[in-house]
Amino acid sequence: MAPTSLNMNTKEETKERGLKSSQAQGHFVPLIVAFVGLPGRGKTVLAHKLERYLNYTGHQARVFSLSTYRRKVAPDVGCDIIFDPHSDEATEMRKQYTHEAISDCKQWIYIGGDIAILDGTHATVDVRQLLHSLFVKQLGYKILFIECIVEDESLLEGNIKDTVQLSEDYAHLEYNQALNEIQKKIKQFSSTYRPICRKTESSFSYIKFYNAGENIFVHRIDGPFQTKVLNFVSSFRPMRKKTLYFTRHGESEFNLLGRIGGDTDLSPRGHLYATLLAKYFNSSKIENLRVWTSEKKRTKQTANGIKAPLESLMPLNELDAGICEGMTYEEIQMKFPQEFAWRDQDKLRYRYPWGESYIDIMSRLESVLLKLEREDSVLVISHQAVLRCVLGYFMNTAPDKLPYLNVPLHTVIKLTINGFDWNIDYIKFNVDCVDTYRSQPENCSVERSSEDVLVTIPKHFDSNPWRIEPALINT
Amino acid sequence: MAPTSLNMNTKEETKERGLKSSQAQGHFVPLIVAFVGLPGRGKTVLAHKLERYLNYTGHQARVFSLSTYRRKVAPDVGCDIIFDPHSDEATEMRKQYTHEAISDCKQWIYIGGDIAILDGTHATVDVRQLLHSLFVKQLGYKILFIECIVEDESLLEGNIKDTVQLSEDYAHLEYNQALNEIQKKIKQFSSTYRPICRKTESSFSYIKFYNAGENIFVHRIDGPFQTKVLNFVSSFRPMRKKTLYFTRHGESEFNLLGRIGGDTDLSPRGHLYATLLAKYFNSSKIENLRVWTSEKKRTKQTANGIKAPLESLMPLNELDAGICEGMTYEEIQMKFPQEFAWRDQDKLRYRYPWGESYIDIMSRLESVLLKLEREDSVLVISHQAVLRCVLGYFMNTAPDKLPYLNVPLHTVIKLTINGFDWNIDYIKFNVDCVDTYRSQPENCSVERSSEDVLVTIPKHFDSNPWRIEPALINT
Repeated sequence: MAPTSLNMNTKEETKERGLKSSQAQGHFVPLIVAFVGLPGRGKTVLAHKLERYLNYTGHQARVFSLSTYRRKVAPDVGCDIIFDPHSDEATEMRKQYTHEAISDCKQWIYIGGDIAILDGTHATVDVRQLLHSLFVKQLGYKILFIECIVEDESLLEGNIKDTVQLSEDYAHLEYNQALNEIQKKIKQFSSTYRPICRKTESSFSYIKFYNAGENIFVHRIDGPFQTKVLNFVSSFRPMRKKTLYFTRHGESEFNLLGRIGGDTDLSPRGHLYATLLAKYFNSSKIENLRVWTSEKKRTKQTANGIKAPLESLMPLNELDAGICEGMTYEEIQMKFPQEFAWRDQDKLRYRYPWGESYIDIMSRLESVLLKLEREDSVLVISHQAVLRCVLGYFMNTAPDKLPYLNVPLHTVIKLTINGFDWNIDYIKFNVDCVDTYRSQPENCSVERSSEDVLVTIPKHFDSNPWRIEPALINT
Repeated sequence: MAPTSLNMNTKEETKERGLKSSQAQGHFVPLIVAFVGLPGRGKTVLAHKLERYLNYTGHQARVFSLSTYRRKVAPDVGCDIIFDPHSDEATEMRKQYTHEAISDCKQWIYIGGDIAILDGTHATVDVRQLLHSLFVKQLGYKILFIECIVEDESLLEGNIKDTVQLSEDYAHLEYNQALNEIQKKIKQFSSTYRPICRKTESSFSYIKFYNAGENIFVHRIDGPFQTKVLNFVSSFRPMRKKTLYFTRHGESEFNLLGRIGGDTDLSPRGHLYATLLAKYFNSSKIENLRVWTSEKKRTKQTANGIKAPLESLMPLNELDAGICEGMTYEEIQMKFPQEFAWRDQDKLRYRYPWGESYIDIMSRLESVLLKLEREDSVLVISHQAVLRCVLGYFMNTAPDKLPYLNVPLHTVIKLTINGFDWNIDYIKFNVDCVDTYRSQPENCSVERSSEDVLVTIPKHFDSNPWRIEPALINT
């Protein structure tokens, strides 16, 4: 996040974006998470993944990367000059950009942020004590240090290669030149770097993260934000490039009838999709492929022919529509017009009576998302609302946009993840199906007419027999 | 929990007791938590507190203490005999009771438990490998070891004193005799005890818990149940005897009118309670007393005269009644009879439209409860529903009973905690107030008459002016 693009909303706007869980934490002491460690130890990737996880779980978190501020303050100064511990000029520049980063952290908390993540080396006891005295003693915040330590040589080598490829610092250099540069930088830092000392720094809260999460040492975790950070850090296993696949189940009988929820079989066209899906995955011979489905028949039937170990996970079940399960939108409007209007007003937070909201499924998906953070080559076969939340997590989508993400039927979504960067491909299969996407109608008031409500309801078999070719139904 | 009283319900009954969060985790691999460490290291207290926390947060957890099984199998055999590593007979007895404990763990998981906590010393590599091969390799569960290590001598001394006082093993002995016994037992175990080795046991998941939570070393945390366990263990600071105080705010203007929620001032009688409360706490001179209130005026006004540092915490706010905020029960019945019936059917899980359920406040209270686990001498001034959940946590109340706990106005509730034992005192102040307790009516169907609904509604000023003496209102 470049400091120039720091899009600081007013306190009100920021608070409005907050979800239930953040509101519930309310008025806890803000937290600064400050990273510690040499270059190439995985700090930046962990910082950004942590930011995404915290925001997804209802907190207001933002990363402030010192390297971004450095490039802004001294765009043309090489790393060998600016990190020279003996140059007064370099020391002055380092002070200046650190000051700017800290000032933006403070501003972020001021406008309503819960957590500011300071991504830098913070290599000396002096620097850490300075941060502590500024944030804790002067401002009354809490600070948690996360020190990334890599003892495993092959892991370090991989990390350094990734840094060379991902960091802007090396974008203008040849690969070998860049490798040379970063090695020099590491050497420079190594001369001053002091790991957090369990004796002299025992008053600090800190986590030592060894060898990409193989071991974790925890000291003085205190308060809900720090617990949440530990939650993520203890589950996370950074991985170089990895690929995940997602698809909704094939078209179901309820999809054809325009009914929501339930637990029906696939339609004939849904079965055809399952057959082609199995062909696709069986022929692409993805190493160590695993398939996770929900507990519903339609996702298991969709997975049926794929030759890979299968797990059925309850958190992948579709949003529970409570008293509206199995109804068409027309029926919901007829029986519960007020509920339907409320849902249109705030689809993210609205919960069906005795059912769930999007926020609820985001919360139950947390365990699956942490599991996915540790896995490669998984195909997730689930449902519309659930996949909106899962994809939204990886794509860092603003929560309010989640309920309107388009996740069409009969399409495989391939997500390639590289550090905190990602790429998405939609592979559309040539099997016809109904469209289940319903956009937000213009009129969301409780007093609206049924016509106003039904204008965005997708066509389905029951009410619009002309839309589905009878020939296709018997495929 | 004595094995004879192991009240194993059927799978259905157990599942029924499950709350939202457990259902949401659904079908994750069951977890065995096995403690490791010498006697007097705080294993049993941590095991029971962990059990309570897990059950409160919607999991099905139960402690199985090896010492209970030992006393059952060999009630009259002294510790010096049964822990003799060189006696074949003793080895046979140890095998027998360990087998019984393990068999009950398996049974617990079979009938629907998520997590079984095995409280014992598990002092050797062999024993740990045996547990691993039995639970992980044979049964496909996961196992997490928690090793309790105390390096601080004065802490150890305190622990040993507590063990002597709390454990049944020493109930029949004089204090000095008992101290002698436990020292012998520790010596016996010390000869065979091997701490978990980071190299040879690196394939296990484990947490090392040093000096009552001062430091924690974490290795291979995997899955939602283990994350939840770490959540608690990393926040918990065991403390010898401690006292917490709880009270609802003084009677408010809305209490008088029979209206729920809102943010009104105290009534004159409520102000009188606040005055007497301040007198009570200021004169009892509790060392290091702190006061936590909600963010509502009525709790802050109640705290007003107490000489102690004050914090206002949003999670202590009253249950949000959503569209029913500020209404009387009569009005709710008139405007939303279906909602009111639903609430009576399942007060624990029912959520007001755009408001909260008891389950919701239990979830937002988690951070406050973890904070209270680390604190002594706190007075919490909050609201009826919230205090039901807070007290229910400490008293290990079944969730379904929480919404009907009686927490009267104008009463200080004093909770003394000693290990995992607790004692509760109700100190009733002599200031009249309305009664806000509403019991579950007999008829909870949606079609019931208004008479059926209103039968359990507590009397209030508006509809029953004779109940409150006008003289008192102007006190």
